[in-house]
Amino acid sequence: MSLPQDLAALLSSEQVSTRSADLELAAHDESACPPTLPEVVVWPQTTEDVRLVVRYAYERALALTARGAGSSLEGNPIPVRGGIVVDLSRMDRVVSVRAEDLQVTTQPGTVYNDLNDQLKAYGLFFPPSPGGSSDVATIGGMVANNASGIYSVKYGGTRDHVKAATVVTGTGAVLELGTRSRKTSSGYHLLGLLVGSEGTLGIATELTLSLVGLPQGRKQGAFTFPAEKAAVTAIAAMMRYGVDLAAVEFLDRRSIAALNRFQDFGLTEQPSLFLEVHGSESAVEEVFDTAQSVCEERQGERILLPGGRNPWEIRHFTTRAIQALNPHAKTIRTDMGFPISRLPEVIDRSYAIAEHYGLVLHTFGHAGLGILHALLREDPADEQRWATANRAKDEMVAYVLSLGGTASGEHGIGLGSQKYVAQEHGAALELMKGIKRVFDPKGILNPGKIWP
Amino acid sequence: MSLPQDLAALLSSEQVSTRSADLELAAHDESACPPTLPEVVVWPQTTEDVRLVVRYAYERALALTARGAGSSLEGNPIPVRGGIVVDLSRMDRVVSVRAEDLQVTTQPGTVYNDLNDQLKAYGLFFPPSPGGSSDVATIGGMVANNASGIYSVKYGGTRDHVKAATVVTGTGAVLELGTRSRKTSSGYHLLGLLVGSEGTLGIATELTLSLVGLPQGRKQGAFTFPAEKAAVTAIAAMMRYGVDLAAVEFLDRRSIAALNRFQDFGLTEQPSLFLEVHGSESAVEEVFDTAQSVCEERQGERILLPGGRNPWEIRHFTTRAIQALNPHAKTIRTDMGFPISRLPEVIDRSYAIAEHYGLVLHTFGHAGLGILHALLREDPADEQRWATANRAKDEMVAYVLSLGGTASGEHGIGLGSQKYVAQEHGAALELMKGIKRVFDPKGILNPGKIWP
Repeated sequence: MSLPQDLAALLSSEQVSTRSADLELAAHDESACPPTLPEVVVWPQTTEDVRLVVRYAYERALALTARGAGSSLEGNPIPVRGGIVVDLSRMDRVVSVRAEDLQVTTQPGTVYNDLNDQLKAYGLFFPPSPGGSSDVATIGGMVANNASGIYSVKYGGTRDHVKAATVVTGTGAVLELGTRSRKTSSGYHLLGLLVGSEGTLGIATELTLSLVGLPQGRKQGAFTFPAEKAAVTAIAAMMRYGVDLAAVEFLDRRSIAALNRFQDFGLTEQPSLFLEVHGSESAVEEVFDTAQSVCEERQGERILLPGGRNPWEIRHFTTRAIQALNPHAKTIRTDMGFPISRLPEVIDRSYAIAEHYGLVLHTFGHAGLGILHALLREDPADEQRWATANRAKDEMVAYVLSLGGTASGEHGIGLGSQKYVAQEHGAALELMKGIKRVFDPKGILNPGKIWP
Repeated sequence: MSLPQDLAALLSSEQVSTRSADLELAAHDESACPPTLPEVVVWPQTTEDVRLVVRYAYERALALTARGAGSSLEGNPIPVRGGIVVDLSRMDRVVSVRAEDLQVTTQPGTVYNDLNDQLKAYGLFFPPSPGGSSDVATIGGMVANNASGIYSVKYGGTRDHVKAATVVTGTGAVLELGTRSRKTSSGYHLLGLLVGSEGTLGIATELTLSLVGLPQGRKQGAFTFPAEKAAVTAIAAMMRYGVDLAAVEFLDRRSIAALNRFQDFGLTEQPSLFLEVHGSESAVEEVFDTAQSVCEERQGERILLPGGRNPWEIRHFTTRAIQALNPHAKTIRTDMGFPISRLPEVIDRSYAIAEHYGLVLHTFGHAGLGILHALLREDPADEQRWATANRAKDEMVAYVLSLGGTASGEHGIGLGSQKYVAQEHGAALELMKGIKRVFDPKGILNPGKIWP
């Protein structure tokens, strides 16, 4: 029998496809990385389905790549060696909410916003959010990339919230990792290793996440600054003084201008911070006032968002707005992370590099975490300019690595950031490869990712 | 040349000892596990010293066990295969405080209290504390066991605060793990694996920790309850409703009585909660009032501690006070972790088991984390009673494992909890062994620990 027939026999014919529309969907993500077609796509519905497919692939040493919504930005789920794509989007059931333990157990295909919609009735939420992709990104994808979001400055990233998981490794073994206890000191932290491994160590088929209570009070606000540096200096100061922000997002002047062009938001075209504070109603006012003082000391001015809008409705369009400026171009994007105090220098250096090469830069990010995305939009067909823009990105990344930072703050390495891995990890890369062999001795799980 | 001579040639003669007093000190920890003498103790002062010693041991396949203060409670640093003990207590320098990044880089031998004393000038502190051992326990030891403490309910455990490390693996390779960024999604989380690996994967020679600001305001208080169950039900409710406690410690009636006998503290001999709240001055009052309401709804009564004492001065004596009741006995202790909502059932079950066997139980712990220590004091010379007490412990641990909990909330597995590892980790144990071989192919680092 053929591969698709074998898989249909293991699962059911409705769970297997070789239709070109399905293969094409499974060939790409939201990055500029070139798509690659798999041979077949399967949609498991249970852990046992996943086990059967992985076991089949293991016995035949076939490449197998798990996939959520494909909203990743570094080519993370592109099946570069073809083979089987395991699309987890039909495993989208919330298995149980244990409100009394502040925990939820869910299948990996659950969409971020859907999960939080279901948690609302319990007064709880899962804080790390995938930003503008919140309406499509799956929990499994967030776990694969150790995603973070606007609220991570207060509540941490995805890894901080994964307490337990059912995982199918590269041999088809089914493991239960972690515990329902808030804290454990028993054995090696395999679960932390799985989170952020981009589907190269195992496929999570069930995930237990820790939740936090919806805040009693919340207050949002926006501030404009005369220059990018003043804005990010205010952030560094707020972090240094422990101002308890739930979110603090930075957008440079060009990103704000792009948003206005995209949807006529009527924003003041100045470098801006969008803030949110969580807590009891009185605490919220107190913290917000402190934040406002820090901003005002650095020439920040509080503005009201036109139409009384929620800042995140606007913020979430940033990437799309920048892309819309020149729709035929593609995005070269940094995902830099660095010590928070270096934010002003990273901003300065990024603009200086872009200017040196005559490139138009847009910057924004979860600045309170020390994560900055610098976006260049260029046409890959203009090979010289494309190469120049990539060189500019390389220089920006090299700079943050020289500060003890990271090439990937939140998007994972995938294909797009592989060239920085050796510099960032040095000799530790060999240990990562050794760990890969322990979990996936035949190297079938999402092959070709993280390192070259 | 002999082993000590070789090591003295690699380091210096002042850094190597075979004196029986030194060997005996290195033979034990604070647990009831039997001590084992090493052949030699060395005191490295630099990463290079550690590298030389590990490389030497690697080439000869000699057992090598790193050690901090030896205040661990599960036999974690007992050199069961003899060989070399690497005592890191002379590597006790704080390398750099980067207050603007809320980070400190320290050598592993720095004592917990000393670190925080040095951080005070910056308005910062390292929150996970090793409780009653805070004046001796080292940062390296805390990292090895992923220690937690009274403040972990708000600020997390040690792993949550380790951002980067210099590590010598079992081959003598020196790795730089982690980043100075608050958040990364680059590569496998080797650093998280190292934390809590009890010195079996590598020896950290430099650690970068994230810090938090000393709270503007803090409020402490104590509550007594008519019964253990009422006290822990109050904790479960406070956790469910997200009351933002910095610390919430439970002590049963017998632990309180032991403390009174130990130092005449004048405590009301009732099951008690000790609380602390951190925040701005107004927020602290608000949160404390909420906590007080929750306690009072469950028959809790606020008491003033005699002499206006700090509750932690008292709390930290708990283990010693219980030991002092019958100084010739030894301690059998659980380190159970479980979902927080199960706290009342775990308390009930633990007392029922003790009563069934006619044993005297003392319980206390970081109840807000879902960690409970149940202590039995018995004389190992009375073999039957010692076996009975161990059977009671096994039943308590089996119960929390059946709830999805953990056999080790914070002390690590060491020798003492090995018998629970197979049940807790199942097939994942084989992957842990595979990871051990990647980091330490000859199995020289702290051999005989975590699994049998």
